[in-house]
Amino acid sequence: MVFRIAIQLRYYRLVQNKRLSRDASRWLCNRTSFSSCQRHRMKYSLASTIYALSSGHGKCGVAVIRISGPNAAETIINIAKLKSLPQPRQALLRSLKDPVTNEPLDRGLVLWFPGPKSFTGEDSCELQIHGGPAVVSAVLTALSKLPGYRPAEAGEFTKRAFHGGKLDLTEVEGLADLIHADTEAQRKQALIQMEGNLSHLYNSWRETLIKSVAHVEAFIDFSEDENIEDNVMAIVKNQLENLKNSIQSHLADGRCGERLRDGVRTVIVGEPNVGKSSLLNVLCQRPAAIVTPVAGTTRDVVELHVNIGGYPVIIADTAGLRTETSDEVEKEGILRAHAYAQKADLVILVIDAAKYVAQMEKMSSVYFDSYVNSYINELQLHSIATRNNTFESECLTGEKLLRTEGSAGNIVDEVCGSGKCGNPSRENPCLTQSRYRRHLTDCVACLDEYFKVSSTGGDTVLAAQQLRKALRHIGKITGHVSTEQILDVIFKDFCIGK
Amino acid sequence: MVFRIAIQLRYYRLVQNKRLSRDASRWLCNRTSFSSCQRHRMKYSLASTIYALSSGHGKCGVAVIRISGPNAAETIINIAKLKSLPQPRQALLRSLKDPVTNEPLDRGLVLWFPGPKSFTGEDSCELQIHGGPAVVSAVLTALSKLPGYRPAEAGEFTKRAFHGGKLDLTEVEGLADLIHADTEAQRKQALIQMEGNLSHLYNSWRETLIKSVAHVEAFIDFSEDENIEDNVMAIVKNQLENLKNSIQSHLADGRCGERLRDGVRTVIVGEPNVGKSSLLNVLCQRPAAIVTPVAGTTRDVVELHVNIGGYPVIIADTAGLRTETSDEVEKEGILRAHAYAQKADLVILVIDAAKYVAQMEKMSSVYFDSYVNSYINELQLHSIATRNNTFESECLTGEKLLRTEGSAGNIVDEVCGSGKCGNPSRENPCLTQSRYRRHLTDCVACLDEYFKVSSTGGDTVLAAQQLRKALRHIGKITGHVSTEQILDVIFKDFCIGK
Repeated sequence: MVFRIAIQLRYYRLVQNKRLSRDASRWLCNRTSFSSCQRHRMKYSLASTIYALSSGHGKCGVAVIRISGPNAAETIINIAKLKSLPQPRQALLRSLKDPVTNEPLDRGLVLWFPGPKSFTGEDSCELQIHGGPAVVSAVLTALSKLPGYRPAEAGEFTKRAFHGGKLDLTEVEGLADLIHADTEAQRKQALIQMEGNLSHLYNSWRETLIKSVAHVEAFIDFSEDENIEDNVMAIVKNQLENLKNSIQSHLADGRCGERLRDGVRTVIVGEPNVGKSSLLNVLCQRPAAIVTPVAGTTRDVVELHVNIGGYPVIIADTAGLRTETSDEVEKEGILRAHAYAQKADLVILVIDAAKYVAQMEKMSSVYFDSYVNSYINELQLHSIATRNNTFESECLTGEKLLRTEGSAGNIVDEVCGSGKCGNPSRENPCLTQSRYRRHLTDCVACLDEYFKVSSTGGDTVLAAQQLRKALRHIGKITGHVSTEQILDVIFKDFCIGK
Repeated sequence: MVFRIAIQLRYYRLVQNKRLSRDASRWLCNRTSFSSCQRHRMKYSLASTIYALSSGHGKCGVAVIRISGPNAAETIINIAKLKSLPQPRQALLRSLKDPVTNEPLDRGLVLWFPGPKSFTGEDSCELQIHGGPAVVSAVLTALSKLPGYRPAEAGEFTKRAFHGGKLDLTEVEGLADLIHADTEAQRKQALIQMEGNLSHLYNSWRETLIKSVAHVEAFIDFSEDENIEDNVMAIVKNQLENLKNSIQSHLADGRCGERLRDGVRTVIVGEPNVGKSSLLNVLCQRPAAIVTPVAGTTRDVVELHVNIGGYPVIIADTAGLRTETSDEVEKEGILRAHAYAQKADLVILVIDAAKYVAQMEKMSSVYFDSYVNSYINELQLHSIATRNNTFESECLTGEKLLRTEGSAGNIVDEVCGSGKCGNPSRENPCLTQSRYRRHLTDCVACLDEYFKVSSTGGDTVLAAQQLRKALRHIGKITGHVSTEQILDVIFKDFCIGK
């Protein structure tokens, strides 16, 4: 116990006297993942070797099969009939043979990635073979016969990379988003996240919190020692207030990152027969919804995924809103249209220009909390002056399609936060998952609790407990272990390493 | 002219005195492809750089983009932001950036394959990126903006490999078959062909022919010279007869290689309502054909592709054969069944066991030239002793399905040539394409013509012309240039090189 206090004091003084640089301090934070990664590596050295077809299916020139685990080294030697392990990361063209039956499988490239300098952090190898179904199947069957081998589960290579300390959770999620990105803006956002920019931001906040915890703990243990400066708690409070402001401004981004990731939910509403389905067909450039001159043609919610200027948009056409209808199906359709519009990110209101003012008042009151953009459509009148926040009614004339689409793209751009999502930046990465929002909100709540307890002169030990909780919440985002473990590890390692 | 004759004589003496080894002689044969490859390389150095997604489509872990052509070196430096060309065949993990806009595209592996040690023989590089549609599209778009770049046409990488002298035509066709192989037996056959075993066989024949042509030409030019041995024409005749026998035994393989490549066309015929459709459903393990107790249920030819024990089988169910029907559709169906059966590799005749003897006589006379295997089915009687070349009627009882399938597999095995196709060998590769059969048949015809002319004491010059034609036919298989060019090149190079 005496020993632990001595170490804590030593660490605190180093931080205090700025002798522990920012880098060294970050290194300390990271020791936790290194250490847990060492544990996991031990665990995985007993684990099975996994293999899978990592490239796409179908007949094609090249298929990539990845192998990761303790037996990878042995396999590359046996399958490519090598005398010894090849140079790391060097592509060799070899006849591949079944390690058990010695039967020829294919002729292809083999690459050897010794751990920890591999994607998973384990010994890995890669076989680049011909992309025929029978070839891929023959190689996978040959691997399945080897002892200690099994097919990889979905995401298992990345899971091992996470446990091997190669990626944190935000990077893992960025990688998944990158693979699933359908549009250019999604790709950019996911790449920034995969390359660790979001992780870097959250880790810097975690670092601030760790320092604050160290300060507060030192204050608790040695507050009567002359070595502790008087204003330490004031400094901590100042740092934490800055941190809280940073987190809050990160949270107050209008959910643009989440929208870009999941798709902007857009709904087209309006009275019957004003041209909602026509607008939908223009936006998705195909006759997705049936258009007739009869009022009440659309009844179900017709939902489509479209890419408008690089943004993923989920656009829904709905039943025309009217109160007087005896058709039960149409009534249900109107109920669904209302429900959909309440949850949408963007409501496009299509209005007959002749009834513009009355309609705007009525509809705006219904969707007061949503983004309301009105889309004026008047089939008889093609040239309406563009008014504030409204669009011209050009959806039915072929030559002006592009213009209408551009306008719709602009609305989406606006909703995603003044073009911020259209150009995701490395300096200011967006919050992309509701999971992060939840943990950060919890973190801010703990900080608030800390301020409340400490400002009312409450027990500093209880206040410190709130900071540890805040640290745990933020650690969950990147998948770092909880606060107690972090501190234990920091001090334990610090002692041994020193 | 005098000079050319001197060279011919010199070459002839070397062969004669066995001072020109088999290897040296093969080298001479190959000079032709080297030389034409040099010409093509010059042509392609002026060609555009091509790129394509070489791995499969769909969301997956890894996508491989290949680039080949004169600008590949420049691109790998620009896209991976390298200071100089990396080590050949060394995988480097890099952030990839658009060479024009410098915008980040992805993080992935780059590999550099300098020509001629690359698949195409040209400078090539490979980008291993994440397999998301937006990522692949972003990288391909970035490449499309570079000057001198264009997307590869189908098979263009292999075409360049052929022109670059890396593969001959049989190897190219083997590669295509390997990618399209659906079953294990097809994969084995295609791999043997891709690795050059068929090419080796045809080239050895071509080599024999070239030597014979050289002997005969020398005989024509210098027959009165005492240096020419008297029995040279007899030796040539002996060699060519052996060659002809080899080609003929290669041709007389029961088309097993072609069947394995294209699928064994199997037809099920028999009287109405004897269980043909039930047998089909058992073989393909799903209710593909409608089965009812009503005679004449099947009318169209129902054709299915199935994999029976590694063999690709195209199996067809047909209308029941009966003469007395008033139904016009059924009549047409019966006509089609007959037509299909005449062209099939394998006819499975389903017979009611009670009528076995009479049916066998009647049906055998109809399909005398085809393989006839009879399949006895008698719904009321499940246990019929297996007779010679017949199968038990177990197709309707679930527990015996496997046994029936095994039997069908055996028939197919038998048809493909006593298991020869099931185990394609490197020593005796199968003829796999009708194109090869045509060229080899033409080659044999020319040899016959040669024998005819020379044995009747005809003009040796005319006889030699037949040999040159034979050489051209065999050269077409592997894509080597025609006989005149071969001889021109051999002697020209021999002169200069010497």
